Amino acid sequence: MGEINQQIILNSRPEGWVMPENFKRVSGKIPDIGAGEILVRNLFMSVDPYMRSRMNDAKSYVPPFQIGAVLEAGVVGEVIQSQNPKFKEGDVVVGMLGWENYSKSNGEGLLSVERGELPLSYYLGVLGMPGMTAYAGLVDIANAKAGEVVFVSAASGAVGSVVGQIAKIMGCEVVGCAGSDDKVDFLINDLGFDRAFNYKTCGSIAKTIAKLCPKGIDVNFENVGGEIMEAVLWNMRDFGRMAICGMIADYNKAEMSPGPRGMGIIIQRRLKLQGFIVFDNPARNMEYIQKAKIWLQEGKLKYHETVADGLENAPTAFIGMLKGENFGKQIVKIA
Amino acid sequence: MGEINQQIILNSRPEGWVMPENFKRVSGKIPDIGAGEILVRNLFMSVDPYMRSRMNDAKSYVPPFQIGAVLEAGVVGEVIQSQNPKFKEGDVVVGMLGWENYSKSNGEGLLSVERGELPLSYYLGVLGMPGMTAYAGLVDIANAKAGEVVFVSAASGAVGSVVGQIAKIMGCEVVGCAGSDDKVDFLINDLGFDRAFNYKTCGSIAKTIAKLCPKGIDVNFENVGGEIMEAVLWNMRDFGRMAICGMIADYNKAEMSPGPRGMGIIIQRRLKLQGFIVFDNPARNMEYIQKAKIWLQEGKLKYHETVADGLENAPTAFIGMLKGENFGKQIVKIA
Repeated sequence: MGEINQQIILNSRPEGWVMPENFKRVSGKIPDIGAGEILVRNLFMSVDPYMRSRMNDAKSYVPPFQIGAVLEAGVVGEVIQSQNPKFKEGDVVVGMLGWENYSKSNGEGLLSVERGELPLSYYLGVLGMPGMTAYAGLVDIANAKAGEVVFVSAASGAVGSVVGQIAKIMGCEVVGCAGSDDKVDFLINDLGFDRAFNYKTCGSIAKTIAKLCPKGIDVNFENVGGEIMEAVLWNMRDFGRMAICGMIADYNKAEMSPGPRGMGIIIQRRLKLQGFIVFDNPARNMEYIQKAKIWLQEGKLKYHETVADGLENAPTAFIGMLKGENFGKQIVKIA
Repeated sequence: MGEINQQIILNSRPEGWVMPENFKRVSGKIPDIGAGEILVRNLFMSVDPYMRSRMNDAKSYVPPFQIGAVLEAGVVGEVIQSQNPKFKEGDVVVGMLGWENYSKSNGEGLLSVERGELPLSYYLGVLGMPGMTAYAGLVDIANAKAGEVVFVSAASGAVGSVVGQIAKIMGCEVVGCAGSDDKVDFLINDLGFDRAFNYKTCGSIAKTIAKLCPKGIDVNFENVGGEIMEAVLWNMRDFGRMAICGMIADYNKAEMSPGPRGMGIIIQRRLKLQGFIVFDNPARNMEYIQKAKIWLQEGKLKYHETVADGLENAPTAFIGMLKGENFGKQIVKIA
């Protein structure tokens, strides 16, 4: 292999918005593997909102990225060398690997997936963490039931688009918001949302939600935080549940943002707000993958990707995703 | 009965802090009763934080007080006339009645209680809504377990003092805060809290909690909101539960207050915040009353009242309670 291993490292920690200069492209060697290890040729990588938190030097459920070290992402790749009995050359694996062409691994945390009719990049989106997150939030955290009103923010995104469609499959009434008229059209016409609006142009978000959800909201799947979360909170019904998945509105602020105003409503309406992450219930994730494959094949679950071509475009794709420029799941094609 | 019926009505809605002029004392007639009704001579009434919300003209789980109408409170009284087969003269009843000497009722929502060894005023505190609220929050909402760290704000108050003692009975480690050194002494020396602090003099509340709860907080019973709730949130452990009972810090603000900063921690630590009110699970309340009587007799549950003498002092007692001037449960002795 005469090729070199292009890598992207964290060059500096962002203050507020992520900038291209926070990243640096370097050329590494293709790693040699030892006993128990495998070498993976990376095919696709994922850029996701949670990565923004890892760029800060703060304790969280995943450790922060280190300055000077190769960044990590969800990756689908092909095993090209193996000294690990669990994997053989040609296997396709998915898991956390580097922003690079070739990654070495001891196999821990990597899952073998089948080459089937569905594109391999799906394992980073609808069949990966975003899809599993959507299902876990609706089922384990919000306990959504048929006939209930479900509201999704960032509804055309990797997680939100799956949330809305699963909620429809479950028999819920689904309302969502997104950041452009095109995305709103997509929600209603392609994904089958009952109602949706453009939060950037609607005027008062709280009043718009009140108009579109006249009975109020039973279940909120919260991806955004900030002003949208406040507006949702005010429109929750008695005994409503808010599955708190992300607060992307806050991730690029240098100062901590205050929470929603009027939190007393949590008491008056006996609301439950619960945070969760995708790793909390592995059995639920396996259940979802089985169901999602069937839903995809039956056409009940639709999936849209934005694919950036080339590892060198990963930083730009990541920044664009944080700004809401992507349509559906943002993927980077590495090879 | 030559006596007159003193009554206190809502004179105007407060803007921000409640003022004495928001109340007005009037003299009414002792009501005549008809078929199915009873006349109650009111003995004790309760002033509680939730009443502040009812002074606003806002939708909530209880309707707002009306200007010009007699205010309502939890009352213990004696039936002195009855045309209702469920009650006889001499019965002691507890329930929502007026801020007045004599109340007429059709008996709906009134509970007969026994004249026993415990003072009748206890049915407005440790054996009433505040006690039941404490138990419901710990058991149904927070699911507190032996060995866990429980944090209580407004810990010397009517609800907080019961929360802390029940949590100790359940085998938890209990930490609380209150607004004076005397109250803090009371928490530790009389009520058996493991640790406590004065939030007005401690400096950084978040750092003080971090010092007193080095492992973090598993269960928070939130009575206060505002700055204290924010400091608690930052000190919660993974999978911690916050039973949201009250936000007294916000009740007297004319503008809506923002929520805690750094709400992303709800996701990172997979926290649950859940609001509740005492009426949500009546069976749990009955279970509590049975247990609480035994705990009181065994001395495991201690109870402290501040009693204002005379109906005319109810507004001052109410305002003082909102400012934290009371010690334990604030009661007004009417007769």
